[in-house]
Parts: sequence; C-alpha cells; structure tokens
Amino acid sequence: MHRTAHSTCTVEAHRDKVGALLAPVAARVESVPLREALGRGLAADVAAPLDLPPFANSQMDGFAIRSADVPDGGAELRVAAPVPAGAEPAALGPGSAAPIMTGAMIPTGADAVVPIELAVPDSFPEPGAAATVRLPAAPVGNFVRDAGSDISAGEPALAAGTFLGPGQLGLLAALGLTEVPVHAVPRVLLVTTGDEVVEPGGPLQPGKIYDANGTLLDSALRQAGLHVTRTGISADDPGALEQLLTAHAAAVDLIITTGGVSKGAYEVVRQALAGHDVEFGAVAMQPGGPQGIGTFGGVPFLGFPGNPVSCLVSFEMFLRPVLADLFGSPAPRTVVRARLAEALSSPEHKHQVRRGTLSPDGTVRLEGGAGSHLVHALARANALVQIPMGTAALAAGDEVEVWML
Amino acid sequence: MHRTAHSTCTVEAHRDKVGALLAPVAARVESVPLREALGRGLAADVAAPLDLPPFANSQMDGFAIRSADVPDGGAELRVAAPVPAGAEPAALGPGSAAPIMTGAMIPTGADAVVPIELAVPDSFPEPGAAATVRLPAAPVGNFVRDAGSDISAGEPALAAGTFLGPGQLGLLAALGLTEVPVHAVPRVLLVTTGDEVVEPGGPLQPGKIYDANGTLLDSALRQAGLHVTRTGISADDPGALEQLLTAHAAAVDLIITTGGVSKGAYEVVRQALAGHDVEFGAVAMQPGGPQGIGTFGGVPFLGFPGNPVSCLVSFEMFLRPVLADLFGSPAPRTVVRARLAEALSSPEHKHQVRRGTLSPDGTVRLEGGAGSHLVHALARANALVQIPMGTAALAAGDEVEVWML
Repeated sequence: MHRTAHSTCTVEAHRDKVGALLAPVAARVESVPLREALGRGLAADVAAPLDLPPFANSQMDGFAIRSADVPDGGAELRVAAPVPAGAEPAALGPGSAAPIMTGAMIPTGADAVVPIELAVPDSFPEPGAAATVRLPAAPVGNFVRDAGSDISAGEPALAAGTFLGPGQLGLLAALGLTEVPVHAVPRVLLVTTGDEVVEPGGPLQPGKIYDANGTLLDSALRQAGLHVTRTGISADDPGALEQLLTAHAAAVDLIITTGGVSKGAYEVVRQALAGHDVEFGAVAMQPGGPQGIGTFGGVPFLGFPGNPVSCLVSFEMFLRPVLADLFGSPAPRTVVRARLAEALSSPEHKHQVRRGTLSPDGTVRLEGGAGSHLVHALARANALVQIPMGTAALAAGDEVEVWML
Repeated sequence: MHRTAHSTCTVEAHRDKVGALLAPVAARVESVPLREALGRGLAADVAAPLDLPPFANSQMDGFAIRSADVPDGGAELRVAAPVPAGAEPAALGPGSAAPIMTGAMIPTGADAVVPIELAVPDSFPEPGAAATVRLPAAPVGNFVRDAGSDISAGEPALAAGTFLGPGQLGLLAALGLTEVPVHAVPRVLLVTTGDEVVEPGGPLQPGKIYDANGTLLDSALRQAGLHVTRTGISADDPGALEQLLTAHAAAVDLIITTGGVSKGAYEVVRQALAGHDVEFGAVAMQPGGPQGIGTFGGVPFLGFPGNPVSCLVSFEMFLRPVLADLFGSPAPRTVVRARLAEALSSPEHKHQVRRGTLSPDGTVRLEGGAGSHLVHALARANALVQIPMGTAALAAGDEVEVWML
C-alpha cells in the first residue's frame, strides 16, 4: 500500500487551474434560434440593429397634440382621425387632437400626449363623428416615448458572455433578431467510482451504499446547461477504469470522476490515471479537499472526492464559477451577506463551506454539521456558507458570505 | 368606442386569485425516474426507507480499534486484515487494529477510528504481513459516522412541494429510490396580440414593433418548467382570437395572452373574452396594472398587459410565486434586503416594481426608468426592486426588498 505526498493549494488557485483547463472548450461557437438559446451564454457582442422604440410612440391612451396649440388655460381642439397601435398615422394639422392608443406612433406634427383622463369629455368620440375636445396644456414630449430612448441603433445591446434568460432573449426579439451566437454546450463524461457504491433500486448488501453522486452531479451539470453522459458505476479496478475513460474520451469535452482521489490504500482514480497528465493534490477546503486535475488523452479531467456533499461543493466552488465565467452559462450564483444564526468553528487553515438556509430576514442557519456525508442536511439547504481561511470560529450574529443555491 | 369601469385590487389579492385559479391543476400527479424529476416539484411526502448512513462507517483513512484497548498513553496493537470500502469485515478481535478506509464499514467489536496520520508508523503495512502499529487513545465514536446519523429509516426525508434540485435528487438516490411522484407539467397556451406586433426576422413597417413578449414569456415559462404552446401573434380581431383560443383550450391547463387588456379603444383580448367568465381590472401595481383573470371554456385564463416589462413583472409577481407554492416548481425567488444606490419616486397608491442590479456589497442600483417598454434596461437587470404601496419616495441608502431574477 502506498501514500503519496500531496501538494496543497487555495480554493482560488484551484479554481484558476480549472479555468485554464476549460478555456479552450469555450472557443466552440454556434448560431441557434432564440428559443434554443435559453439558459446559454452569448458568444459574441450584439449591437442594436435598430432603435428601441423604433419610432416615437404614446405612453398613454389619450390625445396627440401640438404642444404649442394649447395655452396654459387649456384649449378646445378639433378631434382628428384616431391612431391605433400599429398604424402609420396622417400628419396632425394645427388646432387638432388625434385620439391615440398606448404604443401607437406619434403623428408627424404632434409632440405631446394628453391622457384621456384629463380630457373633457374623458372618452373618445365615435370615429367619423365631427367632435371637439377640451384639453389642458402639456409640455413638448409629455407621455411620448422617443425613438431610441431605450437603445439606439448601433449601441451595444448585449456583451459576449451574457447569460441568456427571458429578459435578454426578449431584448433580442425586440431588436428583430431570430438567431444568436452561443457557446456550444460542453459535453461531460460522468463516472462514479467505488466498490462500495451500487445503483439505486437494487438490494443493498452490507457495507454498500447507493450511488448519490451520480444523480447529484448529473442534476447539477444538466441544471448548469451541460450535456452529460453517464457510464454507471466503475468498480475499484484501475485498469478497467482507464479502459472506460479511453473508450469515451474522444466524444467529450470534460471528464469528471467521483471518489478514489484521496490518500487511502485503494484509490482507483489515482491509480487509473497514474500514467496520465493528472495532478492529485489537496485544496485547502473543507469538505472537498482531495482533488484531481489534468488531462486524459488531451481531454480536461477533474477528479472530485467521493462523498456527495464534497461533490456538490467541488462543483459549486470550482466548476460552476468557471463555466459562468467562460461560457456565460449558468448564471453566477447570487452572493449575499448574511448574519449567522448560530456560532460555528472552522479549520483555520482551510476554507470551510457549510450548508445553510438563508431566511428573508437576512440570517442564515446551518443545516447539519461539517460532515461531507450529510446528504439529507444538504437537501434542506438553500445556500452555501463561506468561511474563509484564517477563521477558526464565528459567533452568532457575525456576518458571512452566502452563495444562494 | 367604450371605456369601462375598472375594479382595483392589491398585488397580494390578485396573486391569491391566480392561486385559486390554478390550484385544481396541481392535482395531476405522475411518477417519473429521478433523472426526469430535475427541476420539478415533489407531489407527496417521502419518508426514508433506510438509515443514512446505512451502517456505521469510518470518517477517515486509519485504524478501527476497540477504544478500551488503548489507554491514555497509547498502545501497540496487532494489525488485522484491512477493511476496504464496500466490504463486510470480519469482527475485530481484542488487542488488534484494522486498517480501514473512509466510508468502510466499522467491524463488529470496533468502536473508534484513529487517523493514519496519528499512527506509528503512519502508513499501512502490506496486506498479509504480520505487523503491529502504535496508536494513541481515542474515545468511543471517534471518527465514526453512526448508522442513521444523517436520517433514520421512517423519518421524513422530503416534504410534498419540495423543489427537486441536485441535492434533493441526490438524497433520493442515496435512499435507493429510482422514481418519485411529481406534479405533472402544466401546459400553457401563449398568445401575443396586437396589430402593431410582428414576428422578428421580417421587415419592420412604420408603426410596427417586433414581438418581444412571445420570446420573453416563452422563456420565462419554460425556465419555470412549464410546457408552452405558442400560436404566433394574433391580430386585433376579437372573433379570430376567440376562435384561436377555442381551438387550443382543450389541450392546455392555462391560457396566457399579452396585450389588449387596458382601457383603450381597441382592446382585443377584452373584446374577445367579453362573453366569457373573465374579469378585467387594475391591480395597484406599476408596471403591469391592467390584468385579466378568469376562465375560458373552463380553462384558467390570464391576460397580461402588452409591454414586455409589464409581462415579465406580471409573471414574476403573480404566476411564478403561485407555481412555486402550488407545484413546488420553480424554486421561489431569493428575497434579500438591499440598500438603494440612488433615490427614487414611486406612485404612492401603487406597488412599484423597478428593475435593478444587486451588487455583492448589498447595494442595488436601478436599471432604466419606470417605463414598461424599457426592455434593454430589463436585460441588464438581475433583480426586481419592490417598492410597496404607501411609499412615494425613497432616498439613496434606504433599505428595500429585492427579488433576485
């Protein structure tokens, strides 16, 4: 049996390594219809091809007027033909007021809108009937949305790397675009390992546990927008694991394994990758300290530890921020400051990540202890509580950084 | 032309109406494999069918011992056969120490683990070689994860209504489950209306705008886990719109239209639904005040206003919270308190919803003005800033409630 020396690095340094490893994958770009772009990252800057709004339009239902036609005391104006939304209205002659609907184009000559509520009478006349309306004065631009007041043609609309959610895709549609350049979806091979691990659904023999890591990471990766291939569970046979990875490597952009990266006597991932350009070390983090990183046959490789909480923390601390940064997808986690509802202790020379529940009142309580096997506690949490290196203890009421899950 | 009287209700009252309207839809339940349950809501309580961990196991690589065998000064013990993870070990005899890997079952008779780092020598002997090891004392339970210490068989694991993300699905897998009861995915018919609205991609005639609402709401609804059917844009022809809705109503659980619900002269949705059980009124909210709600041929109906920001605010303020509450999916928005980076004014008799960007330092700045057409400003925002009724002005530094998008 063997134990090898471990290098130790900080959370930030390891995240940088993951970023450098995956940067080349971000170069693959494709153009897709807006509908398929939901949840993906914009791969190039997009400039506005037209003004928004495309033309000056009314912010209210009311009357379009020439501001100069109405003195301070108000005036009686002739009612012109109404302007529904979507129509190109005739020019507005002097001394008249055109009924206009919200969003409809301001007629040439008009420069202000008086809301219908301020008109006497305060309802629109039947179209075609000769009528007048008494209106109060309104300054130039009153309830007028100018062309280009949201964005002007040629201006930057969205920057490369933007996460494309409903608001961003809505903007692209408003700009008349139907396709958008996005980063191609990274393809991940996910292999859980361990002689003790069996698929859920079958019988559980003594000493065995059901595989939580596969479902947990598959879910996290898919939620982050990645394409995941799973191989099932690999037993503690280094040769077989190496063969398995060789068989799949060419078809994926990233290989992730779980387990077998620690300092024990039976570390299948370390053994299987001994001949490859993979470094096994310890990140100064609890949980999730043991980490493998490198390439397997030229394909980026990450070896996560074997406990479920360690897997999720590895994903959230290293992979997800890198994906958000390189691909613009998933969206970065919301980071907030919160007050601890209870005291905690932390290993001073490590960055500790605890599971917690943030309340709307700005306090966060811990879910379960520090143990990386506590998957029920994890399932209750809505946040990761970050306790940086150099902190050995915090009191109730102390402020901490919290990442919302 | 006509204008009808509007009833006015609060944001909370309208949300309650939406909840009552959709409650019957939540009754449809199905059982799906864990992989298909990602992002959906659990439809029934799940109790743990087994203990987690299923058996007492080691938290460290080290030696399993009988605590009573080692006095305070330490002891030299005979090295027994090693216990790899996944194996059912032989009972541990008195005076001996079994090499044990993290996650491996504690042998019968053993009651504590001493980490390998504290052993002399601090490495495992070759299996089969007769060897002894000097170990310090360790209390009963030292580095032992007891069976059931995360959750015990029979205890509640997840409650009905839980959003199923990676942690929750990981727990269900750890419990050996392969299927889970979830709420059936609600099917939505989405119809954007307006003579002024055209599909992105074609030419833009004067007075026309590209349809942003369709893409924006389709994205928001799909992101929230709903199945969306789109009909394209309906022109301002009430009879045609009524026919369109009639053709699709039987196949969906909810109809959403955009536009045509206000007090103007050409309000196609109000006119098309005049003979149906739909109420058109004003919610005391800016933007998104005009709202339609009711049923069309027995199918729940929501009429959102016609501006893109109003559509998104309507979805976020009314539909999304109700879906989270009734179906457990999507997950509720994260709500935080933040300090305004700038002053703002708000209509005192309405609940105002502004778009903003929350910074990690806990301040939120506004994106664009209050105008509901500002879709570029919306695309820059990561949060909705809530200014409740009764507030006319806030100063920079004032605290506000913020919903993270």
